[in-house]
Amino acid sequence: MPGSLAIDAERMRADFDALAEIGSTGDGGVHRPALGEHHLAARKWFLQRAREASLETRIDGAGNHSAILSSARPGARTLLLGSHLDSVPRGGRFDGALGVVAALEAVRAVAEAGVDPGVHLEAIDFTDEEGTLVGLLGSRAVAGTLSAAALERPRCGSEAFAAALARADLTADSILAASREADGLAGFLEIHIEQGPRLVDGRMSIGIVRGIAGIVSFAITLRGRPDHAGTTPLRARRDAGLGAARLVVALQEAVARDFDDGVINCGRLRLSPNAYNIVPGEAELGVEFRAADAERLAEMETSLEALVRGTADDAGLEVEIDKQGCIPPTPCAAEVRAAFTAACRKLDLRSIELTSGAGHDTGALQAVCPSGMIFVPSTGGSHSPREHAEWRDCVNGAEVLLQAALRRAADLDDPALSPAG
Amino acid sequence: MPGSLAIDAERMRADFDALAEIGSTGDGGVHRPALGEHHLAARKWFLQRAREASLETRIDGAGNHSAILSSARPGARTLLLGSHLDSVPRGGRFDGALGVVAALEAVRAVAEAGVDPGVHLEAIDFTDEEGTLVGLLGSRAVAGTLSAAALERPRCGSEAFAAALARADLTADSILAASREADGLAGFLEIHIEQGPRLVDGRMSIGIVRGIAGIVSFAITLRGRPDHAGTTPLRARRDAGLGAARLVVALQEAVARDFDDGVINCGRLRLSPNAYNIVPGEAELGVEFRAADAERLAEMETSLEALVRGTADDAGLEVEIDKQGCIPPTPCAAEVRAAFTAACRKLDLRSIELTSGAGHDTGALQAVCPSGMIFVPSTGGSHSPREHAEWRDCVNGAEVLLQAALRRAADLDDPALSPAG
Repeated sequence: MPGSLAIDAERMRADFDALAEIGSTGDGGVHRPALGEHHLAARKWFLQRAREASLETRIDGAGNHSAILSSARPGARTLLLGSHLDSVPRGGRFDGALGVVAALEAVRAVAEAGVDPGVHLEAIDFTDEEGTLVGLLGSRAVAGTLSAAALERPRCGSEAFAAALARADLTADSILAASREADGLAGFLEIHIEQGPRLVDGRMSIGIVRGIAGIVSFAITLRGRPDHAGTTPLRARRDAGLGAARLVVALQEAVARDFDDGVINCGRLRLSPNAYNIVPGEAELGVEFRAADAERLAEMETSLEALVRGTADDAGLEVEIDKQGCIPPTPCAAEVRAAFTAACRKLDLRSIELTSGAGHDTGALQAVCPSGMIFVPSTGGSHSPREHAEWRDCVNGAEVLLQAALRRAADLDDPALSPAG
Repeated sequence: MPGSLAIDAERMRADFDALAEIGSTGDGGVHRPALGEHHLAARKWFLQRAREASLETRIDGAGNHSAILSSARPGARTLLLGSHLDSVPRGGRFDGALGVVAALEAVRAVAEAGVDPGVHLEAIDFTDEEGTLVGLLGSRAVAGTLSAAALERPRCGSEAFAAALARADLTADSILAASREADGLAGFLEIHIEQGPRLVDGRMSIGIVRGIAGIVSFAITLRGRPDHAGTTPLRARRDAGLGAARLVVALQEAVARDFDDGVINCGRLRLSPNAYNIVPGEAELGVEFRAADAERLAEMETSLEALVRGTADDAGLEVEIDKQGCIPPTPCAAEVRAAFTAACRKLDLRSIELTSGAGHDTGALQAVCPSGMIFVPSTGGSHSPREHAEWRDCVNGAEVLLQAALRRAADLDDPALSPAG
């Protein structure tokens, strides 16, 4: 029964292109920071398209916009499909938007077919995934994991946050009241561009996300001695800059060698006094590393911290490690991954499991319901007007989303079924 | 005849201690930036001590202060001995001051002995060696190598420079008019603390300076790609920060291995965008390297430039090398080095030849007369209140200065003598 349903690739393409015009930067990108003029216009367009398809619409207290196909089944739960319509400033047109357009198309396809899958299907556009304001604002609000304290210290500053909320008729109270009960949610499914080269390199159509990587960040201070660069022989120095350089190389080599399932970035570095003729007396290095598995992330942390201390010691430098933050990894729900895998098999699409190095709404939703996501191949990196996905791959992703949603609905209908169907 | 002369160590100590009180920072250091209040007070004290010893005094158009013992010989030339009384802000009490005190003591010793060495002996305190205003201002003025253009672009800014000149009754014109004819100068001899560990480590009493190192500086820009640090696998990155780190390590290892007569410093580094979660797309690295020999410095430049290009290439980065400056090396005069060597032998002091990594008045004077300098052992680095020299080593240095001056005078008296006498 579910197999006869398919998405309308041309209609979805028209939607995608129409959306890419809203806040277009003229170079293939869009400028739709959360709750800004273009973002609000995009959301309005989304609700309009939902109404045109005779779907119910809803805006919750966190500003999340939904297009809903209700089930007639008594006590039906809601299966969420979606992503986000906001972008980073001058970002790409695929990031987030593809997931919303595909979710809308999937729900529309089911509605048109007159099928009742036994769950309410809700295509949802989450507020502020990109963190212009707070970050994962809408999805964390739904999951009930957003604290009042987080809203008091928005990344954008209190004044800009207040102005943004006013533009969208939201308040901190309405946001916190947007949380939904786990009982009512059957799960969340998302499709997104990969923003990395693994699928393209591996000639894969679909990446099934194993989990969202956790992140640990260190602020490392190395202290040596600021000597005269002309009078102090190399061997007599305690050069914090050289120590930092050795550390950057050693950390990246260690991760490449021992943690090929993780990534690291040594993105920040400041030397002091930062002068041509004075040996650097101090270096401040900002490092973050990610892994999808909590145990592996803890292993990385232990191993890299030891490497930092050992490298500093070898260089005769004092070292201080200040752990800046730790976001734990979020594994995707096994039953959702299984549904995606089965859908790929059914559609004869080559897929691999991989880890998401970036955060996504899926990671937030996992706190309240079984959640998972797939990636489609993309090039041109991330958060850039150059980001690109082949349209065929986008359609494949939407097909997988639809089939996986139907499979999840069927599994829920018959819990005795194996999750992998 | 010269051998019977000796400096008065106690008188010299009293002078050194009195001078260290002028602009004392209370922590062993002094604060005597050029032509500031404390520097002018130190110069006044110097002339007063010269007059008490019945020496002639002179202030030239560049503000250089001198204590002179004239020779009765017709057509006698002038042998300059000296250093500088200015300091970096909150610097040490030995740097420069020891050389002036030792020169004064050497001239005074000759005067007291009633000896006429056949040259005018002039103990000189050069203006602004440290570069608070322009750098090597007094010594370059005497050597005739200071340009009007250099005075129009002072390091301290035109306003501060004008105020400083006014305090000392100097003008740009008077400074440029202070140049002296090579014909009238028999040479320049200087003693200075080493500001490095080689003499202490080698248990040497005297370092005879082979030459003043030349300096080449590079501003290196490495360009990669600023990728998302979560979604981009390590092997797919073009990380300008990692490239810069490899370069810092490679450059220092290459100099340690291939140019152990030189030094290098990678003192400046700036990453862009300098964020925890973005792979550095660009790195700007400021490097300088020094060698005492022009040919070696040129070899270093060729070799290190190739290493920069090769390292960037291996890392898949674009590279731009902007040569910021090149100060050529200045070898010390062979006849002055020979006089120092002979003096050390006569006084039974262990000496080695070494290169000065830092600039000194000797380097400037070499343009107009045979010049050379010695170092005495010091600890505590450079330009710091912690810099320290054992008093016995200071006295040894002054003795070598006196004996070398007398030997230079004797050599000039009989040019047929071998310089090493």
